[in-house]
Amino acid sequence: MKALVLHGIRDLRVEDREKPRPGPGQALVRVRAVGLCGSDVHYYTHGRIGDQVVREPMIVGHEAAGEVAGLGPGVEGLAVGDRVAIEPALSCGQCEWCTTGRPNLCPNVRFFSTPPNDGVMCEFVVVERHQCAPLPPEVSFEEAAMLEPLQVAVHATNLLGTVPGETVAVIGCGCIGLGCLALARVGGAGRIVVTDRLDYRLALARKLGADAVVNVEKEDPAEALARLTGGRGADLVLECTNRAAGPPQALAAAAIGGRVALVGIPQEDEVTIDPHQARRKELRVQFIRRSRFALRQALHLVASKRVDVASWVTHRFGLAEAKKAFDLVEHYADGVLKAVILP
Amino acid sequence: MKALVLHGIRDLRVEDREKPRPGPGQALVRVRAVGLCGSDVHYYTHGRIGDQVVREPMIVGHEAAGEVAGLGPGVEGLAVGDRVAIEPALSCGQCEWCTTGRPNLCPNVRFFSTPPNDGVMCEFVVVERHQCAPLPPEVSFEEAAMLEPLQVAVHATNLLGTVPGETVAVIGCGCIGLGCLALARVGGAGRIVVTDRLDYRLALARKLGADAVVNVEKEDPAEALARLTGGRGADLVLECTNRAAGPPQALAAAAIGGRVALVGIPQEDEVTIDPHQARRKELRVQFIRRSRFALRQALHLVASKRVDVASWVTHRFGLAEAKKAFDLVEHYADGVLKAVILP
Amino acid sequence: MKALVLHGIRDLRVEDREKPRPGPGQALVRVRAVGLCGSDVHYYTHGRIGDQVVREPMIVGHEAAGEVAGLGPGVEGLAVGDRVAIEPALSCGQCEWCTTGRPNLCPNVRFFSTPPNDGVMCEFVVVERHQCAPLPPEVSFEEAAMLEPLQVAVHATNLLGTVPGETVAVIGCGCIGLGCLALARVGGAGRIVVTDRLDYRLALARKLGADAVVNVEKEDPAEALARLTGGRGADLVLECTNRAAGPPQALAAAAIGGRVALVGIPQEDEVTIDPHQARRKELRVQFIRRSRFALRQALHLVASKRVDVASWVTHRFGLAEAKKAFDLVEHYADGVLKAVILP
Amino acid sequence: MKALVLHGIRDLRVEDREKPRPGPGQALVRVRAVGLCGSDVHYYTHGRIGDQVVREPMIVGHEAAGEVAGLGPGVEGLAVGDRVAIEPALSCGQCEWCTTGRPNLCPNVRFFSTPPNDGVMCEFVVVERHQCAPLPPEVSFEEAAMLEPLQVAVHATNLLGTVPGETVAVIGCGCIGLGCLALARVGGAGRIVVTDRLDYRLALARKLGADAVVNVEKEDPAEALARLTGGRGADLVLECTNRAAGPPQALAAAAIGGRVALVGIPQEDEVTIDPHQARRKELRVQFIRRSRFALRQALHLVASKRVDVASWVTHRFGLAEAKKAFDLVEHYADGVLKAVILP
Repeated sequence: MKALVLHGIRDLRVEDREKPRPGPGQALVRVRAVGLCGSDVHYYTHGRIGDQVVREPMIVGHEAAGEVAGLGPGVEGLAVGDRVAIEPALSCGQCEWCTTGRPNLCPNVRFFSTPPNDGVMCEFVVVERHQCAPLPPEVSFEEAAMLEPLQVAVHATNLLGTVPGETVAVIGCGCIGLGCLALARVGGAGRIVVTDRLDYRLALARKLGADAVVNVEKEDPAEALARLTGGRGADLVLECTNRAAGPPQALAAAAIGGRVALVGIPQEDEVTIDPHQARRKELRVQFIRRSRFALRQALHLVASKRVDVASWVTHRFGLAEAKKAFDLVEHYADGVLKAVILP
Repeated sequence: MKALVLHGIRDLRVEDREKPRPGPGQALVRVRAVGLCGSDVHYYTHGRIGDQVVREPMIVGHEAAGEVAGLGPGVEGLAVGDRVAIEPALSCGQCEWCTTGRPNLCPNVRFFSTPPNDGVMCEFVVVERHQCAPLPPEVSFEEAAMLEPLQVAVHATNLLGTVPGETVAVIGCGCIGLGCLALARVGGAGRIVVTDRLDYRLALARKLGADAVVNVEKEDPAEALARLTGGRGADLVLECTNRAAGPPQALAAAAIGGRVALVGIPQEDEVTIDPHQARRKELRVQFIRRSRFALRQALHLVASKRVDVASWVTHRFGLAEAKKAFDLVEHYADGVLKAVILP
Repeated sequence: MKALVLHGIRDLRVEDREKPRPGPGQALVRVRAVGLCGSDVHYYTHGRIGDQVVREPMIVGHEAAGEVAGLGPGVEGLAVGDRVAIEPALSCGQCEWCTTGRPNLCPNVRFFSTPPNDGVMCEFVVVERHQCAPLPPEVSFEEAAMLEPLQVAVHATNLLGTVPGETVAVIGCGCIGLGCLALARVGGAGRIVVTDRLDYRLALARKLGADAVVNVEKEDPAEALARLTGGRGADLVLECTNRAAGPPQALAAAAIGGRVALVGIPQEDEVTIDPHQARRKELRVQFIRRSRFALRQALHLVASKRVDVASWVTHRFGLAEAKKAFDLVEHYADGVLKAVILP
Repeated sequence: MKALVLHGIRDLRVEDREKPRPGPGQALVRVRAVGLCGSDVHYYTHGRIGDQVVREPMIVGHEAAGEVAGLGPGVEGLAVGDRVAIEPALSCGQCEWCTTGRPNLCPNVRFFSTPPNDGVMCEFVVVERHQCAPLPPEVSFEEAAMLEPLQVAVHATNLLGTVPGETVAVIGCGCIGLGCLALARVGGAGRIVVTDRLDYRLALARKLGADAVVNVEKEDPAEALARLTGGRGADLVLECTNRAAGPPQALAAAAIGGRVALVGIPQEDEVTIDPHQARRKELRVQFIRRSRFALRQALHLVASKRVDVASWVTHRFGLAEAKKAFDLVEHYADGVLKAVILP
């Protein structure tokens, strides 16, 4: 089968790999759509994310959906031909965190396209049965590939809660920011302000329900957010940028007594905050690690048309032209929000 | 001034009372609208609610809004002419519950039109300054008089939480049930089923956002709710009837792992439930006592047009004809949902 | 191997069964201690619990610990000779509740000694690897067999929370009640009152940390609890009886704003409560279904000597004399609290 | 009356002030003990804390207890001669935060010895009736003066919760750190590790229940904490230092999935953290602002001898020698933990 393999910095090759075979309790899935995540691009441009280094050639991609093409022995509740979303994390089931209901914190987790684990930008992949979530007919493969980022937004929202009528700020509106915006809108937020540094993304946020938007390169974000929230700030702030400037903006954007979710993964290794402001406001700050128990809810929200993830997909490529997708996303070119690979 | 005074069972008189004068920290309010609550009618028909007995003539009514007509010494932040909603509860501020953030549980609370405390169906009333919530211009006196029942729904929803996409059942749709329906709708409920025994109320629930309705006198409620929720039941059930049959219906309506708010005040003194069903489903059941800290949120939801309480008001009467209102509400006549007295 | 098999009401036989063999991912455990639970006795005396009927001969028992005697293919992190506690529930992993972090609510769960699933009062049992929790050397097999009931108390306490200094009432002090007492003591309860109808159990509760005890057959429980809590009631009430009289006692015992866990399984099919009292106190009532994610914490509390479960074991029997244990427990004879079968 | 007045940096004078007189709803209290807080010392050494500047001569001190010496009109439930603790915060009662149950976040709060509000290091002070908490006879004035810092620890613990058996780290053990240690001990913590840079304070922490202590100037705190918690970190971390180095130590000390309370007020205006570590551990971080609804619980814990605050008081001075107390505390001299002024 064909697979998209990262050999080193900017060295991405389409290669032939042997088609895998499902073992006991496993399913073989014909991959039909894979979203290209910022972390994939980061491995492509840097060869690493923090201390996770690409030492061996690695198939990239982890936001996937496809069709069941084979089953190992002992699989129940799944049939060849079933359309499924694929959960990218495989937790160990035995550690302290798995056995206390927090599998997303499993230190032994195997996550697609995190070294040394291969990803899913290839034609076939073998997964455990419980990594497959059957899709209703009204959810397309492309939408299903968006479930993984949406789950992160669902998880963040579940941890922080929604209160009808409250003011919400979303700092940074890539897909996860748009997911947070969508959850805030569905959850009854009274007013939603979204910030970013790219106007075309802010325009999409507007279209998807933001009441006001702020370009942080054109306006001081703290001032603009204060103005747009009547000087009061937001009850709930969801930080979804990939820069160290995001978290202090998020803390500044919060109202007295506010809740802040730090969802984004900054490129930098240090974040500096003002402790006095946050303390006087008695902020609750929740760091977010991927997601847990969020797939079912994310799928329901998409299937019932409450959350529009189809709008996120701006570009589509085959495996052969996947490198173009990486370049596009790296440079935020051509109005790209999410590029999808269709193997 | 004129006042509507209950002297005993079905003995309601319009009388002259001396106009009260505000003391230090108090405001005199010209009452402009008072909602007629089921509890007012219950005192009218029975002379008591449980062990709270009308022994002395008592002015009835507690859902009120009006205009500030005078101020005692030392009042700040309020001016003559201000339009205000009136908080009917005055908690002691010193008991265990007041000093731990739960004033709605204050055992020393003075609540309008609960013996021996007079109510507000009269031309003028004196209240503490902090019982007055200034109204924005877009909220009418009639809408403001609906805030008290809406606050109960807000409080119940705050205690139980809302989760975008979840299924909600509302058992009984008087004003508080409609308030719960409204909060569920605003909070992103995926599907809302409402039950009652009066078709005209179910029609209003439909109009205000219910996805499905069940007349419990025409259909078995457990069967109908199971059918309407795909055999699964509701994640959140809000019981808002005034009958002992309501709570067991609510427990039966809940999904495995569901949350149940018991908001209604049954006329009966005993409620019988099936403990096995509730235990196997590990239900969380929250009894609700009036409301706390909910006025600001309720006011915001009405002012921002997220919750339509104007539709609740079906009838209006002056003080002189108030007795008609009591008869109407007692017999659920003429499609009455909420009758408002305009002194 | 020898096994204790229930053939019908009061028809319990020691029989030869074929020694089971572990499949992929499974472990063979040599059973060393099994606690005799009230539910086992109920199947023995009634042949059923509610709609769960013993139709085929069934091995009884589910509170077990033992030694790993064999491993199927692919088992990691477990070795022959390891001492383990056995988790009696095997949830499906695929239903709505399993995939949202609530496996104890799985409607497809297979639970030892619940028809038609055999239990563990036999010499060998095969379980999934993740049902085995390795024991530290300081925890005996007998103590490990007590973990299952302790986990229920841990789970109830986790759901309701503990607050240092608060007043706790435990209604009914079998093993689960004593577990709740232990958790309240460890969690910093200011005052703990325990009720039961058996003086010898109340004496044990005293020894294990109760500040006051009430025999509900000698004193009116509501009056006694009010007296013992300064007229105020308990902040947290844990109902652990097996009678319908327990829940109303629990609701009456709660303070204004209190939390109530309904842990016990009443023999009756209806429970009657006073809705007004519970509503005025705005009680939070949580039904409890077995336990989830509680084994690790229970094991830690026993291993660190914070909770004394060894004191619960009053009687020991071999398989051959197990019937005596059932008779003893059925009649609360000879000061029995927990009888343990040592196969 | 005599009062201790701060005129500017290191300019502290004992002066005569007019004895105040209680107005309606107020009480005159004869001050009997006042704890000297780090913030008092900071005003003394710097003339300011952040943007709160001492522009007019200000009486210092806010941790006070005394005896009721007079009552204004309309005060109920309090009599001359009553012994009381004094709540130092007077919130406005009308703002968004006061009316939603979070008075500690009131932006209009008047807090003793925060410019321009005078404090209580004087012979008499007038307070609102609801600022007085009557003391049971078993609580001394000195202990009552310790309630204010203990309340902060109670509030932090209430927000973050306690779980029996969990591991707790306290970073910095002044009085508030010792209060957090006490709450963790009472709440059933399995293991408590305390850090500081002063050995005499660590020795006191040992005496008051710490299982292990770390001098952060002699050992690397992250390494020591990892070693002392089996490489796992603490489930709950309470940061109570006054330095910017504290919060990153707290985040590093937390286990995967841990909770962190940031209670301390750093002298610096910036805090730098590692966002990746905190995100991978999905930490919940709660900034703490003084306390709310904690007095009753703090008082109960002291009165019932569950928390020993008497041990905190290391030095006592009259008003005339109060300056010595400031110098002592400034230099952490003579093993000082808490100096108390006895006017």
